[in-house]
Amino acid sequence: MALIVQKYGGTSVGSIEKIRGVAKRVLEYHKQGNKMVVVLSAMAGQTDNLIRLAQEMTDEPDPRELDVLLATGEQVSVALFAMAVKSMGYEARSLLGFQVAIHTNRLFGKARIHDIETERITKELEKERIVTVAGFQGLDGKGDITTLGRGGSDTTAVALAAALNADVCEIFTDVNGIYTTDPNICPRAKKMDRISYNEMLEMASLRAKVLEIRSVEFAKKFNVPIHVRSTFTQERGTMVVAETEDMEKVLVSGVAFDKNEARITIKKVPDRPGIAAKIFHPLFKSGIIVDMIVQNTSEDGETDLTFTVPTSEFQKTLSLVNKVGKEIGAQKVLGDKNIAKISIIGVGMRSHAGVAQKMFDTLAQENINIMMISTSEIKVSCVIDQKYTELAVRVLHTAFGLDNDLGEKS
Amino acid sequence: MALIVQKYGGTSVGSIEKIRGVAKRVLEYHKQGNKMVVVLSAMAGQTDNLIRLAQEMTDEPDPRELDVLLATGEQVSVALFAMAVKSMGYEARSLLGFQVAIHTNRLFGKARIHDIETERITKELEKERIVTVAGFQGLDGKGDITTLGRGGSDTTAVALAAALNADVCEIFTDVNGIYTTDPNICPRAKKMDRISYNEMLEMASLRAKVLEIRSVEFAKKFNVPIHVRSTFTQERGTMVVAETEDMEKVLVSGVAFDKNEARITIKKVPDRPGIAAKIFHPLFKSGIIVDMIVQNTSEDGETDLTFTVPTSEFQKTLSLVNKVGKEIGAQKVLGDKNIAKISIIGVGMRSHAGVAQKMFDTLAQENINIMMISTSEIKVSCVIDQKYTELAVRVLHTAFGLDNDLGEKS
Repeated sequence: MALIVQKYGGTSVGSIEKIRGVAKRVLEYHKQGNKMVVVLSAMAGQTDNLIRLAQEMTDEPDPRELDVLLATGEQVSVALFAMAVKSMGYEARSLLGFQVAIHTNRLFGKARIHDIETERITKELEKERIVTVAGFQGLDGKGDITTLGRGGSDTTAVALAAALNADVCEIFTDVNGIYTTDPNICPRAKKMDRISYNEMLEMASLRAKVLEIRSVEFAKKFNVPIHVRSTFTQERGTMVVAETEDMEKVLVSGVAFDKNEARITIKKVPDRPGIAAKIFHPLFKSGIIVDMIVQNTSEDGETDLTFTVPTSEFQKTLSLVNKVGKEIGAQKVLGDKNIAKISIIGVGMRSHAGVAQKMFDTLAQENINIMMISTSEIKVSCVIDQKYTELAVRVLHTAFGLDNDLGEKS
Repeated sequence: MALIVQKYGGTSVGSIEKIRGVAKRVLEYHKQGNKMVVVLSAMAGQTDNLIRLAQEMTDEPDPRELDVLLATGEQVSVALFAMAVKSMGYEARSLLGFQVAIHTNRLFGKARIHDIETERITKELEKERIVTVAGFQGLDGKGDITTLGRGGSDTTAVALAAALNADVCEIFTDVNGIYTTDPNICPRAKKMDRISYNEMLEMASLRAKVLEIRSVEFAKKFNVPIHVRSTFTQERGTMVVAETEDMEKVLVSGVAFDKNEARITIKKVPDRPGIAAKIFHPLFKSGIIVDMIVQNTSEDGETDLTFTVPTSEFQKTLSLVNKVGKEIGAQKVLGDKNIAKISIIGVGMRSHAGVAQKMFDTLAQENINIMMISTSEIKVSCVIDQKYTELAVRVLHTAFGLDNDLGEKS
C-alpha cells in the first residue's frame, strides 16, 4: 500500500483506446490498495493543434490568453480518463490546476509552481477515488490560468509527489527507461537501473528528452524518487534518485550528444574589462540562450572568444555579433553550424582522476579534432565536427565500459 | 455610454475569421465609450464533437466529467476572442465560469445559476478592458465545473446582465429577430419589433428556438431587456421586454407550431382517484416529459386519457403505458406520431373574448380536425393532423392580422 503519483504523456493518452488502456493499468495499482494520483498530458497533437489555432488568429497571441487556450488540452484528457475509470465501475475525479490548487507565479507559458494545496486531493483519496490531475497548468495569484511550458506535466507530477509526500513518482513514456546513450546511434547502449538527480540534470540539459529539466530539479530538491518507464510494457524502467556512495564507483554513467548547437568565434577581441558583457548583452536582450563559452588567455592584449547557441538562433546571433564586433574593434567573426557537442556524465568523476584525459585520448585515436572543451563537476563536454558524432559516441561508450555485455540493444 | 452584455452563438464564432468579425463589431461599441461584456458559445460543432468523444469512451459518460469536458468548448472561444481583440490593439480579458465566478447548483449538465460575483468583471471594465465570459459554464459549491445545458450561453448572458445591472442584453444569432411565425413555411411572417417576456416564454416552450427558455425566465425575473438580433447585419432585431399596456391591444402576437410530439390515448380508463398518478409515475421515473394532458369528463365510471410526449420518446412511452394499462384494466392504448401542435400566443387574449373561438373557426373552414385543445392565459394550442401544419399556420397568421403588408418576407 503506497501513495503513487503517475504521469502519462501525450502519446500514452493519444486516443480513446489508449486512455482506456491507461485506466486499466491504473486500476491494477488501485486494486492492490495503492492510493493513485494520475497526471495526464494533452492527447498527442492537441497542444500543437491549439497553438496552430492561436497562430491562425494572430502572429503573436497574447500570452495570458494562449494559456487559457492551451489548458483545455489537459482538461479534455483528465475528463475522458475519469469517464473511462467510472465506466469500469470504479470511482474517479478529475481536478484542474485551479481545483487542486496548483499555485504558480505569473509567467504565462513558463510559470513556476510555488505551492500546491493537498486538501482536496487527500479528501478524494480518502474516499478511495482515483484522482486525475491536469498536467501543465496552474493558477496565479490573480486567479488566472497559467501553463508551465513544454514538458510541464512532468513538473506537475513531481511537484504533486513532493507535496503529497508520495512514495514514488512514476513517469510513463514511450521509451522504457533512460539509456547510457541514444540506442539509435549506439546499439550497445544499456538501459540504466538508476541514475542520480545530478546526472539526470546534466542529461536533461543536453536535451536527452526523457525528463523535463525542471521536474528533475524539483525531484532533487524534495528528494522524490522518479521511476521512468514505458506505458506499453510492464518492465521496470530507470529510477532517478538521490546519489548514493556506490554510484561514485562508476566512472561515467552515460554519453550524451547535441547536434543542435552552432559555434560563433570572435577573433582578436581587445582584452579589457566589460568586453564580454558588451558582446553578450544584445544576445541576452534578444532572448538567445548561450551555452558553452570559451575564452583563451590573452597574450598581447587581444583574445579569441568562442561560444555556442542553438542552431535556430544562428543567423540572428551572427548579425548581432557582427554589429557588436565592429563596435569593439574585433578582427572578425566566424560561424560554424556543423558542430556537435559530445558529453560524458558521471558522479564518479569527482573522485577519479583522468576521466577527461581518457576522453581526449579516445577521440584522438579516431583522429577526431576537439574544437572546444567545457567541464563541470560531473560532466566533460567537447565540441567536435558534426560528422563524427555517431563515431565519437560509440567509441566513448566502449572506452568507458558502458557497452551492453551481449553487444545488443537491451 | 452604457453597460452592454452581448452574447454570440456558435455559428457567430464558428471560425477564426468569424471570431475576428465579432471582435471588430464589439470594438465599435467599445470605441463609442460603452462598457462591453461578451458572452460566447463554443465554436459551431465543437460541443457535438466533444460529446461524440465522450460517447466513444462510454455509453453513459459520468455527468461531472462530461461537464469538465464540454466546458473546454467555450474556453477555446473566449481565449481566441481575447487574442483577436488584443491583436487589434485593444485590451481584453477572458474569464471562465470559475473566474467570474458564476455559482450554480450541482445538477451537472443542467445546472441553475444561483449567484454571480461581479467584482472581477467590474474591476476589468474599470480598466477599460473588454471582458469576455465563457458561456454555458459555472462552478458548484464544491468547486466543481458545471454546465447549464443546451442554450446555456443565453442564460449566462442574461444572468450576467442582471447581476451587472446592464442597460441591455443583446443576443446575436443567425436570424435577425423573432418572427410572428416561421418565415420558412409562412412567407408573410413579420419580424416583431418587440415581444413580452411571457409571450416569449410560450414561444420558447414551443421550441421556437431563438432563445433558451431559462434565459427568458431570468430576464423576466430581473427585468433585463433582451435585444435579439443578427450577427451578420446591423439591422435592429426584436426587443424582449416587460409587458406594457399597449401590448394588450394586439390580439395575437405570433403563431407557433411543433411537429416533434406524439400522442398517446388510453381508452376506457377506470375513473377513480390515483389512476392518473399511476399512469404517469413510470414515465416520470424514466425522465419522459409529458406535455399536453387531456382527460374527458367521465360518464360511466370510465374515461379516456390523452397526452403528448416528444416523438423521440414515443416507443418507450408506448411500452410503459401498455404495461400500466393492463395493470389498471384499461381497454386499450392508441398511439399517433403524425400530429402537430399549433399555438396562437398573445397577451391580448387576456382582455379579448373569442380568440379561441376564432382559432377553431379558422381551422374548421379548412376542414382541419382538432384532436386536442389546451389553453393558458396567453396561449391556445390545438393538436391536429401533421399534414395540415403549414396550412394551419398560414390561415391562422392571416386570420389574426399578422401578415406582412407587402405580402413578402420582411
